[in-house]
Amino acid sequence: MYRDRTCGELRLDNAGEHVKLAGWVQRSRKMGGMTFVDLRDRYGITQIVFNQEINPELCEAANGLGREFVVQVTGRVEERTSKNHNIPTGDIEIYADGLTVLNKSDIPPFTIEDNTDGGDDLRMKYRYLDLRRPCVRRNLELRHRMAFEIRRYLDSKGFLEIETPILVKSTPEGARDFVVPSRMNPGEFYALPQSPQLFKQLLMVSGYDRYFQIAKCFRDEDLRADRQPEFTQIDCEMSFVDQEDVIEMFEGLVKHIFKYVKGIDFSDSFPRMTWNDAMRLYGSDKPDIRFGMPFVELTEMVKGKGFAVMDDAELTVGIVAPGCATYTRKQIDQLTDFVKRPQIGAKGLVWVKIEADGSVKSSVGKFFSEDELRDWAGKMEARPGDLMLIMSGEAMKTRKQLCELRLEMGERLGLRDKNNFAPLWVIDFPLFEWDEETQRYYAMHHPFTSPNPEDIPLLHTDTGKVRATAYDIVVNGTELGGGSIRIHDAALQDTMFELLGFTQEKAMEQFGFLMNAFKYGAPPHGGLALGFDRFVSILAGLDTIRDVIAFPKNNSGRDVMNESPSVIDQAQLDELCLKVEMSDKEN
Amino acid sequence: MYRDRTCGELRLDNAGEHVKLAGWVQRSRKMGGMTFVDLRDRYGITQIVFNQEINPELCEAANGLGREFVVQVTGRVEERTSKNHNIPTGDIEIYADGLTVLNKSDIPPFTIEDNTDGGDDLRMKYRYLDLRRPCVRRNLELRHRMAFEIRRYLDSKGFLEIETPILVKSTPEGARDFVVPSRMNPGEFYALPQSPQLFKQLLMVSGYDRYFQIAKCFRDEDLRADRQPEFTQIDCEMSFVDQEDVIEMFEGLVKHIFKYVKGIDFSDSFPRMTWNDAMRLYGSDKPDIRFGMPFVELTEMVKGKGFAVMDDAELTVGIVAPGCATYTRKQIDQLTDFVKRPQIGAKGLVWVKIEADGSVKSSVGKFFSEDELRDWAGKMEARPGDLMLIMSGEAMKTRKQLCELRLEMGERLGLRDKNNFAPLWVIDFPLFEWDEETQRYYAMHHPFTSPNPEDIPLLHTDTGKVRATAYDIVVNGTELGGGSIRIHDAALQDTMFELLGFTQEKAMEQFGFLMNAFKYGAPPHGGLALGFDRFVSILAGLDTIRDVIAFPKNNSGRDVMNESPSVIDQAQLDELCLKVEMSDKEN
Repeated sequence: MYRDRTCGELRLDNAGEHVKLAGWVQRSRKMGGMTFVDLRDRYGITQIVFNQEINPELCEAANGLGREFVVQVTGRVEERTSKNHNIPTGDIEIYADGLTVLNKSDIPPFTIEDNTDGGDDLRMKYRYLDLRRPCVRRNLELRHRMAFEIRRYLDSKGFLEIETPILVKSTPEGARDFVVPSRMNPGEFYALPQSPQLFKQLLMVSGYDRYFQIAKCFRDEDLRADRQPEFTQIDCEMSFVDQEDVIEMFEGLVKHIFKYVKGIDFSDSFPRMTWNDAMRLYGSDKPDIRFGMPFVELTEMVKGKGFAVMDDAELTVGIVAPGCATYTRKQIDQLTDFVKRPQIGAKGLVWVKIEADGSVKSSVGKFFSEDELRDWAGKMEARPGDLMLIMSGEAMKTRKQLCELRLEMGERLGLRDKNNFAPLWVIDFPLFEWDEETQRYYAMHHPFTSPNPEDIPLLHTDTGKVRATAYDIVVNGTELGGGSIRIHDAALQDTMFELLGFTQEKAMEQFGFLMNAFKYGAPPHGGLALGFDRFVSILAGLDTIRDVIAFPKNNSGRDVMNESPSVIDQAQLDELCLKVEMSDKEN
Repeated sequence: MYRDRTCGELRLDNAGEHVKLAGWVQRSRKMGGMTFVDLRDRYGITQIVFNQEINPELCEAANGLGREFVVQVTGRVEERTSKNHNIPTGDIEIYADGLTVLNKSDIPPFTIEDNTDGGDDLRMKYRYLDLRRPCVRRNLELRHRMAFEIRRYLDSKGFLEIETPILVKSTPEGARDFVVPSRMNPGEFYALPQSPQLFKQLLMVSGYDRYFQIAKCFRDEDLRADRQPEFTQIDCEMSFVDQEDVIEMFEGLVKHIFKYVKGIDFSDSFPRMTWNDAMRLYGSDKPDIRFGMPFVELTEMVKGKGFAVMDDAELTVGIVAPGCATYTRKQIDQLTDFVKRPQIGAKGLVWVKIEADGSVKSSVGKFFSEDELRDWAGKMEARPGDLMLIMSGEAMKTRKQLCELRLEMGERLGLRDKNNFAPLWVIDFPLFEWDEETQRYYAMHHPFTSPNPEDIPLLHTDTGKVRATAYDIVVNGTELGGGSIRIHDAALQDTMFELLGFTQEKAMEQFGFLMNAFKYGAPPHGGLALGFDRFVSILAGLDTIRDVIAFPKNNSGRDVMNESPSVIDQAQLDELCLKVEMSDKEN
C-alpha cells in the first residue's frame, strides 16, 4: 500500500502521528521559508508543509511539483496555527519528512475545481480530468449510494435481481432499436433492449413473484437536450398485486432513498392526483406541486362581453401570482413574450392586477368592468396585491401554455427550491390516446396495460374514456417513473389488440412468445420502472442527467473522449456479410 | 393483494388461522371423499384439502383444476395427521373454504419438477416454464444473493459502483467485438465492451480510488460448450496498491461470499502457487487442489534402458493413484483409451503397480527391472497398493495430458466433491507468451500488465523469463478470475509496446485516449475481474454457466425462446446505410 491514511480522514486527534499519504497536487504555494502543498484524493484535501530551513532538499523537491502530479508524502500530523474551517481536515497539517513523485502530469487543459475554467466541450474531451472535480465526483458517489440503497430496500422486500439479456429480439413498434449484426447467423440481427418489459413479464409467468433489475436500456432516438442513447432503469415487477400494492411498495422505496441518502423523512403518504385533475389544475401529467397556483377556469364567466378572444375560446383559464400586482409594465411584457415564444406558441396573455388598495387594473379594461374583473378575482381567490394571468384558446393547447407560465412564475417567485422535494402519484391515466392523423387509438402506455376494472364495460362503447390501471410517480414536476397492472387474461388481451388495430397475425408476430407464455398460467401482475439517471439528478439538484453519468455521450450520440462511434475494418464488415452504402445525401 | 400468506411460510404455529394463498397447481389427487391440491409459489408448496362432504361444490371445482392453473384459495390452517417431513410446510394443510381460478393453463410440454421429462431443447424453447422448476429457481436465487453480498462487501470497503458505457469504441485486437451501427453517424459503429478495462483504468486516473461494477461483457466468439456471447463480470480496480493489497482485498471478498452465502468459513489464507509450480506439479495454470497426486518428474532416471519413448522424451512425468494397484487390465485400458482420445492426444500410458505384497507389475517390465521400478516408486513416494501412471513426450504437451489424467483419476476416486471448495491463488505468471507462428511475443494478459519489479532488468535480455505482477484466483480447478497491477509509468509502457511489436502509431491508434489520460497524473493501480456466472455456477455445484443465467443463448448464439437474432426490416437497414450481402457459401 502506498499510503496508510487518506487525505480526508486526519483530525486534531491524530496530531503527533506519523502518516503516509498519496494523492494529487491540488495546488502549492511558497510563503517565506515554507512551501504548502494541498494534497487531494477522493476523500478530501490535506495540507502538507515543507520547511526550507529544516529540510532544504525536500523543500526544493516540493517546489518542483506541478499541478496534478501524483505524490506520496510521509510526515507528522501537527495542529495548524491558522485553521481552515471550510474543510474537515482544516485543523491539521502534515510536516513532511519524505516525498516521492509517483507520476508527473502535463498541465491540465482546465482547472480541477468546482468552478472550472473549462468549457463543456473541452471537459467532455478530457472527461477523465473533469471526473476529478469534486462536484462531479459527488454526483457519482450519490449514484453509487442510491443504487446500493435501492438494492438494500428491494432485497429486504423479497425482490430478486435477475439479469435479462442485452442481446434481444428486434421489435418494429415503439422507439427505434439499436441493432447488432450476428456473425454466426448471417443476415440476422439482435436488438439492444429498450426496456426489459417482456422479460420481466415472462419472469412473472415463471413464478419469480418479485423481480427487479437496475438495467441498461437503449433507444436510437434523435437526442434531445437531456436524452442519452443508453440509460439506466430501475425495473420492477410483482405478482398477485393490484395498483394499491405496487404504489405502496414503491412509495416505500422512494421514501427509503430520501431517508437513507438525503436524510429526509416523508412521514405522510405521497399525495395522489388523477390524470384528469392534473391536466385540469396544472395543465400537465407531471405537475410540480412544490407550489400552488392551480388553474381556475373562467370560460363561461368571461363570454359575451365582446372580447372575441374569450368569446371564441374553448377554454379560458388563469392562475394567481401572489404579490405580483407590483409587476411593472416591463415585467409583464416579459411574461407575454415568454408565452409567445415559438416553443410555447400562445397568441397573448391577459393580466389583471388587484392593487393593494383594492383597485383593479387590467389589459382588458375596455371589455370588462371593474366589477366583472372583481368577480374573476373572487372566483380565482385573488387577493389585494395579487396578479391574475389568464389565457384563452383550444383547451389542451391552452392548458399546456399556461402550465409553462405557471412554472416560470414559480421560478421567478423562488418557489421551486431544489432542496424541497414534492413527490406525487398521478393515477387514472387514459388507456387509449386518439390519433387524429391515422384516425385510430394507440395505447398510452403499452398494449399490456390493464384497463381499470370499472371501465371494462366501456371498452367498445366509450373507448376514449376508459381509464388504465396505470400510475406515474412525479417529483418536482419531473416524471421519475411509472407503471401499470398488466393484462393477464387472454380474452381481454385479444380485445385490446383488436381495439388497437392489431390483427391476430401481427400481434403473434410481435408478441408471440409472450402470448404463448401467457397460455401456461400467467398470474395477475404489475410493476413499474423508474429512470435511475433522472432519480439521481433530482436528488443531486441537477437539471440534466448527463452530469450523473460517468461517461456520457453528446447530442450526436458521440463519445468525444474516445471518438466513438468509429469506422471499422472491412474484414469485420465482411465477416458480418454487411456493406456500408452511403446515400449521396450523407456523403 | 391476492394473498395474505405465501405457500412457503405456514407452520404448526399457524394452526387455526384463516389464510388466503395464491399460486400454481403443482398436482392434485382424489382420495376417498377428499381432493388434495399441492399449491406452489416461489416460496414453497402448501397442501390444500377440499372435502366432498363438507362442500361438494367447492370440491367439484377443485377436481376441475389442471396442472399449472393459477388459483387463489382461502381456508383454515390445520395440523396434518400424516406429516410430510420433506417440506417445511409439511406439518400443516389448508381446509379450503374458497377457490378462485385466476388463470387456466394449457398442459405444459414437460413436467415442472426437478427431475423433469423435458429435454434440453424443449426446455430452452419454453424457458419461462423451465424457470419454474425449483432447481432452476434456486440457481437464480443464489445469483441474486451473491450479487447482493458482493456489493455489500465492496461497499463496506469504500468501493464505488460506477456504470461504464455499453456503446463503446471498437478495438481491432483481442477477441472479436460485437458492433452496433450508428444511425446518427452513418458508416460508423459502436462496439459492445469485451470488458470495462480501459474505463476502469481511466477511473483510476480520475481519482476514484476504488471502483467496481457487476458488468455485462460481450464477445463474438464461436461458442464452445460453456461460453455465452454475453456474460457478467465482477470488475474491480484500486489505486495506490500493490499485488498484496489486491489479493488481500479480493480474498476477503471470496471469503465473505462463502461465509454469508454458503455458511463456509475459510479461516486460513488461501494457498498461493507460482505459475511455474502449477505447471510443474499439476500441468495446469488452474490446478484443482481438492486432492493431491502431484506430478513427479522421472525424466533422467528412466533414460538409457532402451525404452525409446522415454529415451527420446523431453519429459517423463507421473502421478501416483493411491490404492489403485487393484485396477484390472480393463480399467487400465480405459485409462489408456482416455489419454489417447483426440482431445487429449497422448500416444500411450505407462503403468506400474506396487502390489499389496510389495511385488511390482508394469507395462514396461521388459525394459526395466523390478529394482528400477521400485526406485521410481521411491522417487514418486508410491506405497504398496498404489498405481503409478507415467507419460513421456514434449514437456508442455505431456504436462497437459497428464493434467487431464490426474483430473480423471480424481473423479474416479471421488476426490472432487462439489461441496468441498479449494481456492488457490496462482501468481507470478509470465509477462509474455512466445508465438511460434508469428515469431513474436504477445502479452499473456494485456499490454498494460506491469512486470514484476525485480524482473524489469530482464525485459530486453531475457524477455521470456520476465514475470508479470499478475494473479489468478482458482477454485476447484476452475479459473474464477484474475488481474494484475497495471503499468502507470509512461516510459515502461513504451518499452512494453516496443517489445510487443506495437509501433508508436499503432499503440496511439488503439489505446491513444488511455495513453493521453496517463499523461495527466496516473496513480499506481491494479485490479481484477471475476467471472460472475462462473462464480455462481461453482457455488451452485454446476458444470455449466448456462444454468445460472435466466435467459441463456444456445451454442449458435440463438435465443430459441424468442427466436433471436432475426431478420430486420429493409427500412431499418436503409436508415443505417447498410446492405446485407450474403456470400454464396452462406446462401
